[in-house]
Amino acid sequence: MKTIEVRASRNYSVLVGEGLLAEAGERIRAAAGGVRACIVTDDNVEPLYAKKVEDSLQGAGYQTIRFIIPHGEASKSPESYISLLRYLAMNRLTRTDVLVALGGGVVGDLTGFAAATYLRGIPFVQLATTVLAAVDSSVGGKTAIDLPEGKNLVGAFYQPHLVLCDTTTFATLPKQTVQDGFAEIIKYGMLGNPELLEMLQTDVRERMEEIISICVQMKRDIVAEDEFDHGKRQLLNFGHTVGHAIEALSGYQTSHGRAVAAGMCIVTQAAVRRGLCKEETLALLREICKKFELPQTSAYTFSQMYAIMTTDKKRAGNRIHLIVPNDSGNCEIRAMDIEELKSFFA
Amino acid sequence: MKTIEVRASRNYSVLVGEGLLAEAGERIRAAAGGVRACIVTDDNVEPLYAKKVEDSLQGAGYQTIRFIIPHGEASKSPESYISLLRYLAMNRLTRTDVLVALGGGVVGDLTGFAAATYLRGIPFVQLATTVLAAVDSSVGGKTAIDLPEGKNLVGAFYQPHLVLCDTTTFATLPKQTVQDGFAEIIKYGMLGNPELLEMLQTDVRERMEEIISICVQMKRDIVAEDEFDHGKRQLLNFGHTVGHAIEALSGYQTSHGRAVAAGMCIVTQAAVRRGLCKEETLALLREICKKFELPQTSAYTFSQMYAIMTTDKKRAGNRIHLIVPNDSGNCEIRAMDIEELKSFFA
Repeated sequence: MKTIEVRASRNYSVLVGEGLLAEAGERIRAAAGGVRACIVTDDNVEPLYAKKVEDSLQGAGYQTIRFIIPHGEASKSPESYISLLRYLAMNRLTRTDVLVALGGGVVGDLTGFAAATYLRGIPFVQLATTVLAAVDSSVGGKTAIDLPEGKNLVGAFYQPHLVLCDTTTFATLPKQTVQDGFAEIIKYGMLGNPELLEMLQTDVRERMEEIISICVQMKRDIVAEDEFDHGKRQLLNFGHTVGHAIEALSGYQTSHGRAVAAGMCIVTQAAVRRGLCKEETLALLREICKKFELPQTSAYTFSQMYAIMTTDKKRAGNRIHLIVPNDSGNCEIRAMDIEELKSFFA
Repeated sequence: MKTIEVRASRNYSVLVGEGLLAEAGERIRAAAGGVRACIVTDDNVEPLYAKKVEDSLQGAGYQTIRFIIPHGEASKSPESYISLLRYLAMNRLTRTDVLVALGGGVVGDLTGFAAATYLRGIPFVQLATTVLAAVDSSVGGKTAIDLPEGKNLVGAFYQPHLVLCDTTTFATLPKQTVQDGFAEIIKYGMLGNPELLEMLQTDVRERMEEIISICVQMKRDIVAEDEFDHGKRQLLNFGHTVGHAIEALSGYQTSHGRAVAAGMCIVTQAAVRRGLCKEETLALLREICKKFELPQTSAYTFSQMYAIMTTDKKRAGNRIHLIVPNDSGNCEIRAMDIEELKSFFA
């Protein structure tokens, strides 16, 4: 097991290792205390792991209740959010109780936002059961729901009391879901970790604990400098401005990981054309994407993507911050106005 | 004009004085910047002041849009909240734009919560047009909406960039709404300001700027020690635990101010019976409540109120923190379990 200590407006630990779900109860008791625990999970994860977590929580002295959402992005809706809040209120949860998000990014984002806002904030812990949740949403305190007008448009910065990533849960994930997670892992490599990029070219199955830990530490270090996303944290957005546009244009049929992979390749290709980044960087990125069966391009034209990119919530007035790979093997934040963005991708 | 500087996770100013609405644009520009301003107001306030504020904002260079809600507590609903968020998203407001809450507590609480969570936080300013909003919700950063299960069950701590209280707006308030505001002002007197209690026995109409400023300063000082409501800030809850029960039992037909006035008298009466507080304190409280035509008792029995009080969100595990006047002419926080609460009011 690896432990990563995160310092933020609340300090907490991320634990990565095998079999952590069975120990969840005692670890949650130590980190968050409380009398009652509400497990929030989806209908994919519930039959696999809810009983195990519930037993562990009860063994640690918690009374437990369960709230199950349908799996998939559609559950990050205002309707699910309000239903969850009403369920908590009907069950009279108090500020000394705890929400337990058991699942991937959708469960984590929705539960985190409910925890941030129910009674103006109650403790929550994340039990990440996907690679993507482990490396992406488990650190940094971003919680969110979607609106019909766009993804993640509503949310809060809210730190969990504890994050557990039980790597044995990855075995029950569909292949495509694992690949999606690797898109974000590749991103960390591209942000300036050549050892990680090398590792990704080997057999990764035996090294998941190490790989996840590296990503969590990188994210921890970036977020530590910029909890509220005004500066350096935007680096984590590499591949995402274009990726979000691809997701939206596909009506969210293209998964987040696939869209981000394509987004990273498209931005890197443009950076090579502008002479900002070496040809080898692009070649390596493409090779690794290929290995994980991730796309390197998209079917949409730039003018289709452009309309969506300009509504990105990271936009500041008329300027968009695009994350662009550079010659030193890492990435930098480039502020561009709408015209510069057009000519960058031209 | 009086200026009160508030120090919190964001520092801001509360300005109290005549004619401030006409200067809103320039003051908002200086405090919050931004390109566009969305005025959120209700159908009572909109015909009176929206044009004046809009002109002032446009004069200061803002593009403006308006979102109007029906007046009254029913607009602090999940539905209004989601509608407002979707309106902001449809109009593509960004993190550098600003929300302007023009109205009383309902408008301020709803707008503040939307501002706290839209894009995980955009600037907002409050233009308080009621006495209650001026002394209560303008300072402290509490934002909220209601659920069918209870009031203010969902929200965030979120500081405005600026608060303006234009005291000329009080002239257009219904008499009962002004009286409601005075219930909260009396509360500040009871928390340990005998000069304020004396002032309330004189003609208050000419001294509104002074009275509001005293309350804002008191709240500022209390909140400064306890932004996130774990300790001293609970003093502000004097009269509210019982008051909230009265509001709920009346199906919210009894106004907040009237319920809080009755709550303060009921708790003070119990404190006198327990020998915790002087008889004169109760007599003075009752006299001032009478002057402002506020109730000193309620039609509900303690056992009716009890069921509601135990679901108060301030409850911590099995303990409730009740705010009780003491012999020194101020109030203290008393932690009680359910049985102690019963015997306190017996």
